[in-house]
Amino acid sequence: MLRTHTCGELRVSNVGQTVTLAGWVQKGRDLGGLTFVDLRDRYGITQLAFNMDTEAELCSRARKLGREFVVKATGLVRERESKNKNIPTGEIELIVTHFEVLNESITPPFTIEENTDGGDDLRMKYRYLDLRRTSVRNNLFLRHKMTQQVRAYMDSQDFIEVETPVLIKSTPEGARDFVVPSRMNQGEFYALPQSPQTFKQLLMISGFDRYYQLVKCFRDEDLRADRQPEFTQIDCEMSFVTQEDVLNMFEGMIKHLFKTVKGIEIGALNRMTYADAMKYYGSDKPDTRFEMLFVELNNEAKGKGFPVFDNAELVVGICAKNCADYTRKQVDELTDFVKRPQVGASGLVYVRVNADGSIKSSVDKFYDEATLKVWAEKFGAVPGDLLLILAGQADKTRKALNELRLEMGTRLGLRDKNTFSCLWVIDFPLLEFNEEENRYFAMHHPFTSPKPEDEELLSNPEMIGKVRANAYDMVINGVEVGGGSVRIFNKQLQAKMFEVLGFSNEEAQKQFGFIMDAFQYGAPPHAGIAFGFDRLCSLFGGADSIRDFIAFPKNNSGRDTMIDAPSTIDEKQLKELNISVIA
Amino acid sequence: MLRTHTCGELRVSNVGQTVTLAGWVQKGRDLGGLTFVDLRDRYGITQLAFNMDTEAELCSRARKLGREFVVKATGLVRERESKNKNIPTGEIELIVTHFEVLNESITPPFTIEENTDGGDDLRMKYRYLDLRRTSVRNNLFLRHKMTQQVRAYMDSQDFIEVETPVLIKSTPEGARDFVVPSRMNQGEFYALPQSPQTFKQLLMISGFDRYYQLVKCFRDEDLRADRQPEFTQIDCEMSFVTQEDVLNMFEGMIKHLFKTVKGIEIGALNRMTYADAMKYYGSDKPDTRFEMLFVELNNEAKGKGFPVFDNAELVVGICAKNCADYTRKQVDELTDFVKRPQVGASGLVYVRVNADGSIKSSVDKFYDEATLKVWAEKFGAVPGDLLLILAGQADKTRKALNELRLEMGTRLGLRDKNTFSCLWVIDFPLLEFNEEENRYFAMHHPFTSPKPEDEELLSNPEMIGKVRANAYDMVINGVEVGGGSVRIFNKQLQAKMFEVLGFSNEEAQKQFGFIMDAFQYGAPPHAGIAFGFDRLCSLFGGADSIRDFIAFPKNNSGRDTMIDAPSTIDEKQLKELNISVIA
Repeated sequence: MLRTHTCGELRVSNVGQTVTLAGWVQKGRDLGGLTFVDLRDRYGITQLAFNMDTEAELCSRARKLGREFVVKATGLVRERESKNKNIPTGEIELIVTHFEVLNESITPPFTIEENTDGGDDLRMKYRYLDLRRTSVRNNLFLRHKMTQQVRAYMDSQDFIEVETPVLIKSTPEGARDFVVPSRMNQGEFYALPQSPQTFKQLLMISGFDRYYQLVKCFRDEDLRADRQPEFTQIDCEMSFVTQEDVLNMFEGMIKHLFKTVKGIEIGALNRMTYADAMKYYGSDKPDTRFEMLFVELNNEAKGKGFPVFDNAELVVGICAKNCADYTRKQVDELTDFVKRPQVGASGLVYVRVNADGSIKSSVDKFYDEATLKVWAEKFGAVPGDLLLILAGQADKTRKALNELRLEMGTRLGLRDKNTFSCLWVIDFPLLEFNEEENRYFAMHHPFTSPKPEDEELLSNPEMIGKVRANAYDMVINGVEVGGGSVRIFNKQLQAKMFEVLGFSNEEAQKQFGFIMDAFQYGAPPHAGIAFGFDRLCSLFGGADSIRDFIAFPKNNSGRDTMIDAPSTIDEKQLKELNISVIA
Repeated sequence: MLRTHTCGELRVSNVGQTVTLAGWVQKGRDLGGLTFVDLRDRYGITQLAFNMDTEAELCSRARKLGREFVVKATGLVRERESKNKNIPTGEIELIVTHFEVLNESITPPFTIEENTDGGDDLRMKYRYLDLRRTSVRNNLFLRHKMTQQVRAYMDSQDFIEVETPVLIKSTPEGARDFVVPSRMNQGEFYALPQSPQTFKQLLMISGFDRYYQLVKCFRDEDLRADRQPEFTQIDCEMSFVTQEDVLNMFEGMIKHLFKTVKGIEIGALNRMTYADAMKYYGSDKPDTRFEMLFVELNNEAKGKGFPVFDNAELVVGICAKNCADYTRKQVDELTDFVKRPQVGASGLVYVRVNADGSIKSSVDKFYDEATLKVWAEKFGAVPGDLLLILAGQADKTRKALNELRLEMGTRLGLRDKNTFSCLWVIDFPLLEFNEEENRYFAMHHPFTSPKPEDEELLSNPEMIGKVRANAYDMVINGVEVGGGSVRIFNKQLQAKMFEVLGFSNEEAQKQFGFIMDAFQYGAPPHAGIAFGFDRLCSLFGGADSIRDFIAFPKNNSGRDTMIDAPSTIDEKQLKELNISVIA
């Protein structure tokens, strides 16, 4: 080792010892007789002291050390005169007797400090320098700790980690695949897995009983801030279980993670049906850190001559506590907010329940105070509260009100990143209708089983959209962190599902023949779940974006600007693969 | 849960309890009054008993259960009359009172038993059934245990597991890359990593200090039995260390694995230079489970008028203990063995040191008994031993004698799969000359540092092949399980290496510009290693092929015959990617 200790471990108890440290120059301070250099490594920062009076040559050399030079320094640990209580090594310093520059550094494009960076583009291009910042590195240490605790929990529950293949088969259902041309099988392509779904089901058919994997998955989608072309899942599957067993098992996992990683005891997770989530939050991933539930007003608001409400499929609102004194300007801001195309409402109706008990509304013309009081009561509003009401086509209005609710939650400081509210959303619809393609798609995926009591509805074209699935999502603070389902394990039902999804027998056989075949050899009842691990890490880290929890992320164009990938390849490579780029 | 217990846990202490099990029908036996069904799951086998006298309907149904049917059975645990000492549950059975067929099975293409299979093609096509066999599944359980213990050790040594990207950049140096066309960056391609080499070096530059990862890597090579297009590495890197530190750290890892996984205490690892490995074993991965070292005879054998030896660059042999009584036929077999094109010797000279002390040789004509006795002494041969001698061009002769040595080791039972001999081979050459391309290639990779004392030879074209590297391999039982090196961390030396390897400045910049740039910002001294994890698992499992330690391996054509991948993809997909398959 080029060092005897790290830059994070020396204490007063080491005073008098001769030690050697190695690390990076964080900064230097020249105080005339003394020169100080802060030496940084992964473990901390230790102050090196050089004495001009006794070690003039050494000190002169030390004064020439630039930021980020790599230095090995030997010296005597001594107690500091002026202590720094902010760092664990702040009580000591090293009186250097020898040092060596192991490597020099040119001036970095940005300073390696906690709260500075050079902007996103520069950070990504010089990611190796960005990762030197303690805050960024700590995100990856948090991630490491989470992987350790995920594995500790899964291992304790007798799950076996099995690596499934990365070079698999392209399936058109679902998102777009990344593909890999095969040199040995010309004209053919592997696909990178969007998830190991079929492999984990095959492992259940193999009798593995409990499988998990922390696994890279791939989706060739247009990227948003919180999407990456490659991402990591905690992927799990269990046999001989019911939905209840899966919910309990993974409730256990998330509790274990909060306890061991964050030191937080979270209670039992609430459960909410998809129907209730949509009705009360307008979202299948409600942020339950705060209440502000939707209240429907059709009975109370329609038929009173206000055309906007009369013509609406749904009149629905929320009660913003203590916001009755919002100014005109503030209310206008909210109106502008809901009218943004991304939110899509045509307008906003407000009802102020004033502190004096009087009521003032933007629709006073159509509703007398007595009626508005009935509304207020239905919202559970008390003096000082503000009702915010939208109307229109039901689904769109709920979606818009969800946005408004989240906006109000943010404005009212109800969405603290250090507060965690976890719940299960259950009883998802099995299918959703796609208007463009004029057919049903699997809401979760084609292997999700319908609830047994709804199964017969599958044969009734009128009712098919009402079929509920044994599918569940775990939602934390309004973020879907995981989702899964009880699977179909019966060939006939699986064939029925493919039929409902518009696959011909031939297509189903071509794409999924191997799993349909496998179902014939004694498939056990099984169910599973997958968690988005990058997202879970960012949530635990209190961050919005997943990027800083990935060592080398890609930008929104799918590029790694540091290594400059993707890039063109040799003609020779293309030729060997028997493909060409279309000019 | 559909069960109260697993099929592996019931014991005499459970007698009298009513329990529910679920699993697969291993087999049934109909004994008239009683019908027995062995029910199997991951955890074991439990005998179900059905009584025709008391439960006629149940028993009749049980008699119809086919192999691999999935059954849930409830009943009373009772002590068996005739116990089966071969299985942990052999003292009890379940008197079934209810059962349910959860799924039926058609007849599997092969029986799910320990030592039967349907041949490799059938096993691969129905891998999900093959994995039901306890022996195959146990290989994957061993692998899981090994991952746990690798992580336990690395974590205990303060290594951080960091996930590096899978979609990276193609580099022509090294093996052939798998590539992934980019839809968002048309005409450009990602490559799948052959190893995370540059990323782990960048992590050292970032100050991560100690990194590891169990990581999938990819090579588009023509496949052999023990190669797979995707494989798993234990990938590691450390900063501020010398070669000695790396050797000690990973000697610690392998000892930990042997101790915790196999219950074996292995002593300190021997170290052997590459030069000695070639001289005494003719291989850079010697099987040191047995001695039989090479003995060179140039001084003793040349110049005595035997043209084969006189014209040879090298005369070299081994001493096969107690083989003096090999028959003519046996010696002919060995001669045929060394003359096979894969081995490539032109003939074999033997010297029998007979039990009575007399000596008999195939070259008696040229060498008198006194001379042959000198040879025998040099080999340390005692009466009863057989000397086997090859001659010719030095490198080729050593390579052929290595094959013969291994063959003799096998014949003499010296290569027991349950004996483990581990060693470090060190001081590899930095470069090896490629005759075809008429240039030097990096023996390990272009980031490997020369030994400081040999560094100046790099500028001497005559001596460049003699430069030794700070590179090391771990070899167990003649298998290279891991290899690594101290890295170059200095931009000038790295540029020099690229020059020696025949890269123009431009090419070096295009391919490796990012790491050369990174070296300018204070790269620390660092070193690392990577282990072939599939191979390590197969070694621990006492198997020759890595395939059975991979859940879903590919065949020698790179195909997964179970899912039928690779396969053709839609025209639409090709179009989106802006590529076409050449007709």
